[in-house]
Amino acid sequence: MTDFANGDVWLVGAGPGDPDLLTRKAERLIHEATVVFYDALVGEGVLALVPPHVRMEPVGKRSGRHSKDQSSIDRLIVEAALEGEKVVRLKGGDPAIFARANEELEACRAEGIRVSICPGITAASAAAADLGMSLTLRGLARRLTFVTAHARAGEVLDLDWAALADPQATLAVYMGKAAAPHVSAGLIAAGLPGDTPCALVEQASLPTGGEFLTRLDLLPIAAKTALGDGPALILIGQAVGAAVLPQRAASIASTASLRQR
Amino acid sequence: MTDFANGDVWLVGAGPGDPDLLTRKAERLIHEATVVFYDALVGEGVLALVPPHVRMEPVGKRSGRHSKDQSSIDRLIVEAALEGEKVVRLKGGDPAIFARANEELEACRAEGIRVSICPGITAASAAAADLGMSLTLRGLARRLTFVTAHARAGEVLDLDWAALADPQATLAVYMGKAAAPHVSAGLIAAGLPGDTPCALVEQASLPTGGEFLTRLDLLPIAAKTALGDGPALILIGQAVGAAVLPQRAASIASTASLRQR
Repeated sequence: MTDFANGDVWLVGAGPGDPDLLTRKAERLIHEATVVFYDALVGEGVLALVPPHVRMEPVGKRSGRHSKDQSSIDRLIVEAALEGEKVVRLKGGDPAIFARANEELEACRAEGIRVSICPGITAASAAAADLGMSLTLRGLARRLTFVTAHARAGEVLDLDWAALADPQATLAVYMGKAAAPHVSAGLIAAGLPGDTPCALVEQASLPTGGEFLTRLDLLPIAAKTALGDGPALILIGQAVGAAVLPQRAASIASTASLRQR
Repeated sequence: MTDFANGDVWLVGAGPGDPDLLTRKAERLIHEATVVFYDALVGEGVLALVPPHVRMEPVGKRSGRHSKDQSSIDRLIVEAALEGEKVVRLKGGDPAIFARANEELEACRAEGIRVSICPGITAASAAAADLGMSLTLRGLARRLTFVTAHARAGEVLDLDWAALADPQATLAVYMGKAAAPHVSAGLIAAGLPGDTPCALVEQASLPTGGEFLTRLDLLPIAAKTALGDGPALILIGQAVGAAVLPQRAASIASTASLRQR
């Protein structure tokens, strides 16, 4: 079974939000923990699976309102482990993808704390499942690239558009809603056609989410139409042309009709 | 609960191999199925979770010995659904990443069959967890790219090395063992330094797997040293420099000492 001793830390992927997309291992780890430090991006349904006797500590970061900075989170985790707790650090998605795992791993290792990772379903996989599409297509979409559009506070988005504007790739932009106009303009300026299929997926995997199928030049309109303040993922590339809009999204998918099906 | 009617098809991600890394949803779907078509890459521990009353149909493809071609698999799935079965198509990893999902989705839709995707943990996430590392590093490894080194039979590997040789990216090469010499030579010729940290992970998440930490110029040696015939993933980039070799790999990780820690 899972190896979880007093003083251990597990960085656990909570997946995209749907508690059904938690792994069996993650579920067991949150049952064995004595304390769970969790992000603002962890789904409520996932948090509901944590047993009542486990101490819950929100350390949520969300665009624009950081409740704790990274070094404070690192310190909280380390202190709990040194006090002999069984620590779960629950992170939205996969801990290894745009989740600042390295800082927490290093902080633990510097104190001799045993720290392990339990992977989670990342948002791009969940968004593809929501849209009934593959992220790769044999011969057509042979590369899959993930970037984040979440810039440090006060910094402009600095992505290498020339390298990303590849018609044979699928591009997944994490935390992409606010940056949608830059993403669209940057990729088109770098040569990607304006009619490249494009999807904006809010809160992938959750019934409260929404999907917009559109094209690259109209992406900024889709981002404006999207009303939620939750996280959003943008998918760009020929593979998105095979996406199918779920029924639940039909009423809000006002840009879907812009796309020739 | 899960919506699974007679005549429906679910493409289900089996994850990297460890049955504990199956999602709760995938576990439920294989319990509700009447037939499961599965790949050679699906872990034995995952197959052991399928209840005895469910019919198991191997349609395994493995490098060099394809037991069924893709169109035969598509037809089997479609026929089972049209006969009113509850069909699970169980795929190693995530159905949306290098798994030929599009062919199966289109075959089902052409027959009016309702087809859905349940995402799975992809090998790159599992390999990063095995190595205790993040695939992305703030400011240093800002992009994560997945490619497959599995070429069509008789074709040479045709990857855009110039676009992939990015010192600020992490590159994950799926099915990469046989192509390791080409990957190493291609990236170095395109300008990536020979001492770029590199890992070869066989059978990520499984106790029978192995990990090799090395550097890009020595990657071919690591690939030769790796003895298993299971699938292997190659991770390349500065993020790999933070990887920690698990104890279970120590005895076979002969190239680990080549790396200055």
